[in-house]
Amino acid sequence: MNEFKLIEHFFIRNMPATLPLGVVGIGDDAALLPISDSHALAISTDSLLQDTHFYADIPAHALGHKALAVNLSDLAAMGATPKFFTLALHLPAVNEDWLNEFQQGLFACAKKYQIALVGGDTCRSHQGLGINITVIGEVNRQKALLRSRAMVGDLIYVSGHLGESALGLLAVQKKIPFNETWLKAHYYPQPQVELGKALIGVANAAIDISDGLLADLGHMVKASGTGARIDYRCLPLARNAMARNAEDLSQADAISLALTGGEDYQLCFTVPIAGQSAMLSLAEHYSVIKIGEVIEGDQIVFEPLLPNAVDLTSGFRHFE
Amino acid sequence: MNEFKLIEHFFIRNMPATLPLGVVGIGDDAALLPISDSHALAISTDSLLQDTHFYADIPAHALGHKALAVNLSDLAAMGATPKFFTLALHLPAVNEDWLNEFQQGLFACAKKYQIALVGGDTCRSHQGLGINITVIGEVNRQKALLRSRAMVGDLIYVSGHLGESALGLLAVQKKIPFNETWLKAHYYPQPQVELGKALIGVANAAIDISDGLLADLGHMVKASGTGARIDYRCLPLARNAMARNAEDLSQADAISLALTGGEDYQLCFTVPIAGQSAMLSLAEHYSVIKIGEVIEGDQIVFEPLLPNAVDLTSGFRHFE
Repeated sequence: MNEFKLIEHFFIRNMPATLPLGVVGIGDDAALLPISDSHALAISTDSLLQDTHFYADIPAHALGHKALAVNLSDLAAMGATPKFFTLALHLPAVNEDWLNEFQQGLFACAKKYQIALVGGDTCRSHQGLGINITVIGEVNRQKALLRSRAMVGDLIYVSGHLGESALGLLAVQKKIPFNETWLKAHYYPQPQVELGKALIGVANAAIDISDGLLADLGHMVKASGTGARIDYRCLPLARNAMARNAEDLSQADAISLALTGGEDYQLCFTVPIAGQSAMLSLAEHYSVIKIGEVIEGDQIVFEPLLPNAVDLTSGFRHFE
Repeated sequence: MNEFKLIEHFFIRNMPATLPLGVVGIGDDAALLPISDSHALAISTDSLLQDTHFYADIPAHALGHKALAVNLSDLAAMGATPKFFTLALHLPAVNEDWLNEFQQGLFACAKKYQIALVGGDTCRSHQGLGINITVIGEVNRQKALLRSRAMVGDLIYVSGHLGESALGLLAVQKKIPFNETWLKAHYYPQPQVELGKALIGVANAAIDISDGLLADLGHMVKASGTGARIDYRCLPLARNAMARNAEDLSQADAISLALTGGEDYQLCFTVPIAGQSAMLSLAEHYSVIKIGEVIEGDQIVFEPLLPNAVDLTSGFRHFE
């Protein structure tokens, strides 16, 4: 847990009031605020800051998409239907071409996921560019997907291909050759909103993979008071990773990036044995794969053991 | 209208979808999202950025208070009851003492106005300090105070003393001598939440005074398709302004600051003739004063005319 996550815990400890009954506050992908006997709003906020989350040369269209997409991913992890968002835009300067590309990327994403802009604050930043978005969705109160509800015996699934965004970042940094698939995964993450909704009533627990599978699965099993057993051979590795020259990327690197590469914005979720037939149907429409099982304890273990060549410290993180 | 406000209009023009029935989007102090036949959520977002909205030497406790207070002022202007907020904190460094003071200011304000923190994102800023808060309140759908509902013949009221925050800023900038009342108005604005709630069913229209009375009244009459006539002699000027040495502040300066000084976070609202008896009762509990009348046209006129010594261009603004 980095020092900035620790600060959030510091804030929670100092909060003056207990939350009203039925409210889920800080600690899950989104807060849940009951609005009726049956439904709750799911709310989440995320910032993207220059030099922390992106470089100044990111295309404005990609940034507009990504700023909204990373927030939608939090709603996806709750199984919530996106409804509304607010946008705070901190601009070092006013550049009409840039703004036009940014809004096109933002609103193309908003249209795809059917979410409407309802509030904004645009102001001059005397420092770099910053974007903060707060998303609001709606979800069934009783069935919302929490990270804390994984049960021993559940099978663990992930969606998509993991590690591609981290590879895209390495390509942006010119540490590896250009690859369109990976760059797209990095610049245009696709939040798993439809999958999240489809998992309502099927999955016991879910989390979105933003810090890397190992870190986020760790958050899920910790919140659930369980451990996890993972078969690394089942991990959905980055596409094309193996087709490249050996000097580019070894299988060990691909496994490492699948476990620790950040910003996949895929879902990791657990499904009880009773839900396996529903998962078979879901697998016809979504890219999902079983990678392990929820077990007793408080550790994530690999069975078989990870090859020695897999270096889990090499993953990409913010704030390095 | 500054260039940053223009950008918000640019975003609105490019929005892909019309909003669902009953939703009030960008353009008022807060968006209104219906959650039942009778009630709506009011949502607003505001950022405070170093060197744009505050200087690096602002006390952390004051910044914690103010970041939440300016958002609560938007809910007050709708007559909404505060419920929940999210906090995005962009930190150049981690300083425990600073964080402790900040959270104390933030949570003292949260406790006073009965609003609970439900979501957050804390991250490193490679530039200066930034805070974004999104507030969520609840309000009667039919009776929410909109800026667009001023009617010709309504009387215009304001709360509090105007121009004190601008004077506090001048004191911070050491352009005038230190004055505790004004510094407090600048660092610890008191959002008029209770007054806003009391105005439900009494006022026709309301707006919070963040850009200066003249600018914000201008927004209100423009949204309402009306004009306004103001008696400058009725303006509630900054306290102590007249008691000081003549070289500090003339009456003309005090009038100018009341009209154009920013960050008062008081309310400006209009009340029909039929609501005047209710206003008499309200005036027993709140500092409110009648300053003019809503008239036909699209201008704000002064009757009597403003003294020549009043310079409306001297007011304080961001982004100068």
